[in-house]
Amino acid sequence: MEYRIEKDTMGEVKVPADKLWGAQTERSRNNFKIGPAASMPLEIIYGFAYLKKAAAYTNEKLGVLPTEKRDLIAKVCDEILAGKHDDQFPLVIWQTGSGTQSNMNVNEVVANRAHQLAGRTIGEGDKTLQPNDDVNKSQSSNDTFPTGMHIAAYKKVMEVTIPGVKQLRDTLKKKSEEFKEVVKIGRTHFMDATPLTLGQEFSGYVSQLDHGLKALENTLPHLGELALGGTAVGTGLNTPKGYAEMVAEFIAEFTELPFTSAENKFEALAAHDALVETHAALKQLAVSLNKIGNDIRMLASGPRSGIGEINIPANEPGSSIMPGKVNPTQCEALTMVCAQVVGNDVAATVGGLQGQFELNVFKPVMAANLLQSAQLIGDACVSFEEHCANGIEPNQERIDELLKNSLMLVTALNTKIGYYKAAEIANTAHKNGTTLKEEAVNLGYTTAEEFDEWVKPEDMVGEMD
Amino acid sequence: MEYRIEKDTMGEVKVPADKLWGAQTERSRNNFKIGPAASMPLEIIYGFAYLKKAAAYTNEKLGVLPTEKRDLIAKVCDEILAGKHDDQFPLVIWQTGSGTQSNMNVNEVVANRAHQLAGRTIGEGDKTLQPNDDVNKSQSSNDTFPTGMHIAAYKKVMEVTIPGVKQLRDTLKKKSEEFKEVVKIGRTHFMDATPLTLGQEFSGYVSQLDHGLKALENTLPHLGELALGGTAVGTGLNTPKGYAEMVAEFIAEFTELPFTSAENKFEALAAHDALVETHAALKQLAVSLNKIGNDIRMLASGPRSGIGEINIPANEPGSSIMPGKVNPTQCEALTMVCAQVVGNDVAATVGGLQGQFELNVFKPVMAANLLQSAQLIGDACVSFEEHCANGIEPNQERIDELLKNSLMLVTALNTKIGYYKAAEIANTAHKNGTTLKEEAVNLGYTTAEEFDEWVKPEDMVGEMD
Amino acid sequence: MEYRIEKDTMGEVKVPADKLWGAQTERSRNNFKIGPAASMPLEIIYGFAYLKKAAAYTNEKLGVLPTEKRDLIAKVCDEILAGKHDDQFPLVIWQTGSGTQSNMNVNEVVANRAHQLAGRTIGEGDKTLQPNDDVNKSQSSNDTFPTGMHIAAYKKVMEVTIPGVKQLRDTLKKKSEEFKEVVKIGRTHFMDATPLTLGQEFSGYVSQLDHGLKALENTLPHLGELALGGTAVGTGLNTPKGYAEMVAEFIAEFTELPFTSAENKFEALAAHDALVETHAALKQLAVSLNKIGNDIRMLASGPRSGIGEINIPANEPGSSIMPGKVNPTQCEALTMVCAQVVGNDVAATVGGLQGQFELNVFKPVMAANLLQSAQLIGDACVSFEEHCANGIEPNQERIDELLKNSLMLVTALNTKIGYYKAAEIANTAHKNGTTLKEEAVNLGYTTAEEFDEWVKPEDMVGEMD
Amino acid sequence: MEYRIEKDTMGEVKVPADKLWGAQTERSRNNFKIGPAASMPLEIIYGFAYLKKAAAYTNEKLGVLPTEKRDLIAKVCDEILAGKHDDQFPLVIWQTGSGTQSNMNVNEVVANRAHQLAGRTIGEGDKTLQPNDDVNKSQSSNDTFPTGMHIAAYKKVMEVTIPGVKQLRDTLKKKSEEFKEVVKIGRTHFMDATPLTLGQEFSGYVSQLDHGLKALENTLPHLGELALGGTAVGTGLNTPKGYAEMVAEFIAEFTELPFTSAENKFEALAAHDALVETHAALKQLAVSLNKIGNDIRMLASGPRSGIGEINIPANEPGSSIMPGKVNPTQCEALTMVCAQVVGNDVAATVGGLQGQFELNVFKPVMAANLLQSAQLIGDACVSFEEHCANGIEPNQERIDELLKNSLMLVTALNTKIGYYKAAEIANTAHKNGTTLKEEAVNLGYTTAEEFDEWVKPEDMVGEMD
Repeated sequence: MEYRIEKDTMGEVKVPADKLWGAQTERSRNNFKIGPAASMPLEIIYGFAYLKKAAAYTNEKLGVLPTEKRDLIAKVCDEILAGKHDDQFPLVIWQTGSGTQSNMNVNEVVANRAHQLAGRTIGEGDKTLQPNDDVNKSQSSNDTFPTGMHIAAYKKVMEVTIPGVKQLRDTLKKKSEEFKEVVKIGRTHFMDATPLTLGQEFSGYVSQLDHGLKALENTLPHLGELALGGTAVGTGLNTPKGYAEMVAEFIAEFTELPFTSAENKFEALAAHDALVETHAALKQLAVSLNKIGNDIRMLASGPRSGIGEINIPANEPGSSIMPGKVNPTQCEALTMVCAQVVGNDVAATVGGLQGQFELNVFKPVMAANLLQSAQLIGDACVSFEEHCANGIEPNQERIDELLKNSLMLVTALNTKIGYYKAAEIANTAHKNGTTLKEEAVNLGYTTAEEFDEWVKPEDMVGEMD
Repeated sequence: MEYRIEKDTMGEVKVPADKLWGAQTERSRNNFKIGPAASMPLEIIYGFAYLKKAAAYTNEKLGVLPTEKRDLIAKVCDEILAGKHDDQFPLVIWQTGSGTQSNMNVNEVVANRAHQLAGRTIGEGDKTLQPNDDVNKSQSSNDTFPTGMHIAAYKKVMEVTIPGVKQLRDTLKKKSEEFKEVVKIGRTHFMDATPLTLGQEFSGYVSQLDHGLKALENTLPHLGELALGGTAVGTGLNTPKGYAEMVAEFIAEFTELPFTSAENKFEALAAHDALVETHAALKQLAVSLNKIGNDIRMLASGPRSGIGEINIPANEPGSSIMPGKVNPTQCEALTMVCAQVVGNDVAATVGGLQGQFELNVFKPVMAANLLQSAQLIGDACVSFEEHCANGIEPNQERIDELLKNSLMLVTALNTKIGYYKAAEIANTAHKNGTTLKEEAVNLGYTTAEEFDEWVKPEDMVGEMD
Repeated sequence: MEYRIEKDTMGEVKVPADKLWGAQTERSRNNFKIGPAASMPLEIIYGFAYLKKAAAYTNEKLGVLPTEKRDLIAKVCDEILAGKHDDQFPLVIWQTGSGTQSNMNVNEVVANRAHQLAGRTIGEGDKTLQPNDDVNKSQSSNDTFPTGMHIAAYKKVMEVTIPGVKQLRDTLKKKSEEFKEVVKIGRTHFMDATPLTLGQEFSGYVSQLDHGLKALENTLPHLGELALGGTAVGTGLNTPKGYAEMVAEFIAEFTELPFTSAENKFEALAAHDALVETHAALKQLAVSLNKIGNDIRMLASGPRSGIGEINIPANEPGSSIMPGKVNPTQCEALTMVCAQVVGNDVAATVGGLQGQFELNVFKPVMAANLLQSAQLIGDACVSFEEHCANGIEPNQERIDELLKNSLMLVTALNTKIGYYKAAEIANTAHKNGTTLKEEAVNLGYTTAEEFDEWVKPEDMVGEMD
Repeated sequence: MEYRIEKDTMGEVKVPADKLWGAQTERSRNNFKIGPAASMPLEIIYGFAYLKKAAAYTNEKLGVLPTEKRDLIAKVCDEILAGKHDDQFPLVIWQTGSGTQSNMNVNEVVANRAHQLAGRTIGEGDKTLQPNDDVNKSQSSNDTFPTGMHIAAYKKVMEVTIPGVKQLRDTLKKKSEEFKEVVKIGRTHFMDATPLTLGQEFSGYVSQLDHGLKALENTLPHLGELALGGTAVGTGLNTPKGYAEMVAEFIAEFTELPFTSAENKFEALAAHDALVETHAALKQLAVSLNKIGNDIRMLASGPRSGIGEINIPANEPGSSIMPGKVNPTQCEALTMVCAQVVGNDVAATVGGLQGQFELNVFKPVMAANLLQSAQLIGDACVSFEEHCANGIEPNQERIDELLKNSLMLVTALNTKIGYYKAAEIANTAHKNGTTLKEEAVNLGYTTAEEFDEWVKPEDMVGEMD
């Protein structure tokens, strides 16, 4: 393997000759061999590309960076965003908690690549761009990394999570409408209860996701606040006047997302409550999705010895030993995702708890958990929608069979004969294995005609929409 | 001890003669000896009192309950709300997960007390009110318990959490303004960094709490949705037309809080994502408060071998063995509360994950955790404000001493001589134990005059407000 | 209300005249109005009583405390342990994180009560015992509070948790044996699977609890390590030689539990990993119990539209609106406890994470969570055993009906005709709604005789014990 | 791209022609596009390779598999273990919760590769080995996946976690001995306290890790229990007599680890408390390491305005904006790992909570979290040891300066003049900014000579080892 020499303020470092990164990236690569290589999410690197470009535009406009430097920086950033340099970011999450090394990784790659774009060979002559003085101008890791992670997280939520959840929500809504006249037994405490329609049951899922989406959207203004312009400790040292607001506007323009400059930069560096806030909404969605996945798994259980009220698509042979077995595999993937997201929420929380003075140094771990959760929720919703929810059908025969036997239809008699006599009917039918009607008549509490008139499942489900 | 006989649909039960409760309460009391007695929060009982009264008003107005019964129910509810029957609710959190037994506890107490108010002795003659048919009319445990817990939680958040957090927030804001010209060293990675003002540091705390309050308020609309009117499974069985909306209006009127009828009752019974949502905001506040408590503890550390930049009130002798020791006890109480709230959030989440079909049966544990967290956050903020934050003063001498020695003031030279030369100055001064100025001049990078002009801490803190 | 004046090193404090506590307790009572009063668990106070007595015995034996003082201290401690002064400990969990104020509460109560026992009135004459110099001799809050909490936790685990879990385990074991020949359908993925016996199903629960008990017992040696003798920072300052070991022996003698002196006192003050360790085992038990509670709830579901393979005791009317409904209320209480314990584990963890230098100041919150979890697990197991597990009976008719229809019995054919043909039989029977036997014969893969010989559920369950 | 046709019991599937996997793998690949591809940990695949080989050996020895088939299976497994087929396992964690699809992935790859090894082309002629009937013989996903994950987890703990923690523990132990005479100020509540040696401080860290290692080792017997032989539901259906024990012995032999056959297979399939148990020990280590990382970060803080009692290696330039800044980056990586592990523990717990009947279907997510945590803890300890702990040196000058000023040295006077007078001395010195000695003499409580004799920091640290 060939190497070249790169320098930083600590001295010389050997770097693989074919790589664009520099001394500090190489130091980090060697000093943090924790978990798989290159675990720092690319989304954050792309977030950096947006912000480096925006910083260059702002610096140029405010007169502290020459136009040609701006253009070089912007050009490399565009290349990064086009995915041309994905293999130039070898660092891990488990580095310095400010993400300084990933900031420098970007600074070094931009500087070296700009040197190439300027028609020269890396290492040849004076640097076209200085990583710290040019690429990082008016910036610090302490305000760039949080900016990069907010950009990454906001985009992920907008591009993956929300569309994924909505896709599932819309299908569940469609199913809810399709099933609006399918009257079935209800279950409370996992025990037989009064009837409802299958559509109503599904409408509850829709409502959960609607509230979850609302909760997630509620967090976006905080997530949209960018730290950039705070520099090292929040005071904006070494930034030109007007920089913070302008750079946020450029980022908003480049990403087409409504980013703003954080009103208080001290919070924006020292606390990452915005990530805690958004992750909590993802966790809420996980809570909702776990209920939905579980219900559908149980409603589809059987085929002969379970609940069996709905059929779900049979996508794969379910068992390596039990021939013909089909399992609710999408429900399982979905609920496993939920377990992960609940755990990730705690990881993000534990990171969030421990900021100190002017900096929280759990940035990479917090951001990585948020990005994973946002991706998993979105992907799992799409997978579940396409391969399961979309194909759900009621098993009408089974639904009818279970409905007509239900002892809880007796509840309709409360307002006619009172709770206590109704209970006596239900208890007697349960004991004797008979029907409610038989016992209602036997006990003399209703006539057969009254019973038939009063106890109609389809009248017990309220408004069917 | 004297007993009387009470009956329910399962038969007779002996109940202490001096108690207002009935058969089902007594069964639960005997069947669930888990943890301390009467652990079901009184706030939930009061929530029930509001809703039972509102249900009676609604039932009467819709023609299904006689006016005299309404008035009796309302009268007992008012007594409960006045705290006159606090000892009549002996049940525990760890009962049925629908809270049915606490609903029946309230139904029984209202019925028996109404009998007394009607001038009779409990057990004498026909019941004035039937617990199930009258007090519980148009209701189920499945819609009353969630209604009761939403009322309790909403009130707690409004009456304890938000005012408590605001009290602390306002004092921190005031301190932030008082300290706006106190220039001090910044710290990132717990290492010396560029300066900021103490006021700026505190403004970050204010911003955290402002965002936390906003996050909490964002959750209130969901928490304000009431399940009442859903009855057993969400269909509204056995409720008169218009009941759900009207009863929510009465509750809003009686509590003076903006409660609404949940648009989707199936969600409102089967999922308690609203509690998950509100608790997550409390958890976010805990994350913020942990940072604040920790920072203040560390800023006040010493008196001689710590940071020592601020003084906090000395409220108690700090040690049983070390004479004269004073400790940041309010910070400790606050951060312990934060740990509890983070744990409670997981408890609420685990409950929320496990709803099944038409009912979530983790209602009491979810509600109890939310109520505890809301109380603790509010109380701890008040305690911390009164006994600590309010008395914080800068230790100007120490602040100045630390500031003037800081090597990170060198950052001001970046834009004059570049990052690399600036680093050389700082590294040399660090190695030699000298000042930046000495080395800047020695190295020939600045003159003494330039140094003095360029490196002024008070110019490095940006806008001081 | 009458008051007397008490003093500490900070000055005078007015204390209610009828209370035994002194100045520091009163300060804390006023400075920490967070959550309900007197929330500091009495078990910890009792732990203090054991250790104060042991310290007095050790101090006397090592010649630094007069015998009469020892006897006075011991006498008051015995009174405390007899429950005579429970109302003298008004402090809350949310105080200083070292628990200093509760240590002083005990010191003050012992000193004042000793004064009474010496025949004098509180406040009259010189103090018979000095709270700091006598009652707290050779002690610090920093080593007494962890000692008190270890004593409290160890006792709770031994007296409540382990016996409770064992009671449930033994009943499940008995049921497992009773049900060892009840062949039933198995379920994997909540879908029909190959058969097993109900006894085997229950044996899995027994094995879970056996492993959980083993895991809990594994943590006891660490929990049995006492910090006492470490004094303020772990160095044993102001303790006589041999004190640490001797005081641990006295505590072991008084409590009849195998306590030892922590080999490393620095860990014992600065970290509470022992609590984290024991709580994790409680959490593991919660995980196991949640599975058990859930399974039993689902096995008992119905009565007509669920699984219905077992019957559980009907302890209470289950619904305030649905007459005759019976619910698995003990399962619900149990699984709610599990949710709480999982949350508490996080609270204890978050506390454990944040020790600093020579002290962890999350002691009260960590101890309180551990004590609550240990109590809840033990109590809930007993409640569940007495009111549910003990009365479980198989519903033989339902079990047989579900078993004989199962398509997964086809698995027995794998070794005869191969997985692929077996799958064809199962799939065909599923599609046609027919029996396996019909399709096996139709497809020509087995004769009717072969089928009957090869597919016997009772031969598919392996060893039945 | 070229494809070939593969079949399973559901029909035909197009598979990339150059891949060894078959129909079921391809279905899963298409049906679960959740998160990054191939996220199922390779360690689990290797676990499968061990067990497939062991199963083949056992089946052959028990007479149900021909020797040549055994040898083919073993040969492919050895190739897999040699890393030759890493790209043949494209599935994700977020698949069926039993891991059936990864089991089938292995079965298919083994069968197809065996076909090649038998000198034929995939798809050509009859299959040399049937994936289900031969490679999966005497197995089910339900017992293989838990076996594979136990093998993977046990190996990871033994090969990465324990050695990593021990490496750090040993260095801390060495440092503890090196620093055993470095007397320094202690800190409790982050406030100045009585002195101890730096060696004693470090000995606490060693003790934490020793206890953590013990806790981890305590979990190994449960983790060493293998489910194999349970087949589909725990009854061992379709396994030859003696299979379970023999296959565990072969696995033990091949892996050189003390695996045993789980005594109760029903637990081993339906609950993964063993993973919960082992993960909890990893979490305990995370709790310990967070304390250690935090302490070292704070002890090294400065260089001029922090604690500064130790120096740690300067590995990288710490700031992109602040020249010359060096940060405790290894502490940050370590504590970020701790945050992740605490979160992962909750993910594993949430999975563990939700087993149902004969199967827990959160296997992949539980296993993946355990493997990640075990890897991260081990790697982070090594990184922290090599790049930080190993280079820690005391900053003697700073230590001495802080020690000699400490007001808490007054504690040595307790046993001479009593706590109250000692407090007066300390309080006065604090107020006046004077020394203890000055005030002790001024107040007339000691002579100068007595003070010097009684207050010697080096005498206040107890046994120095």
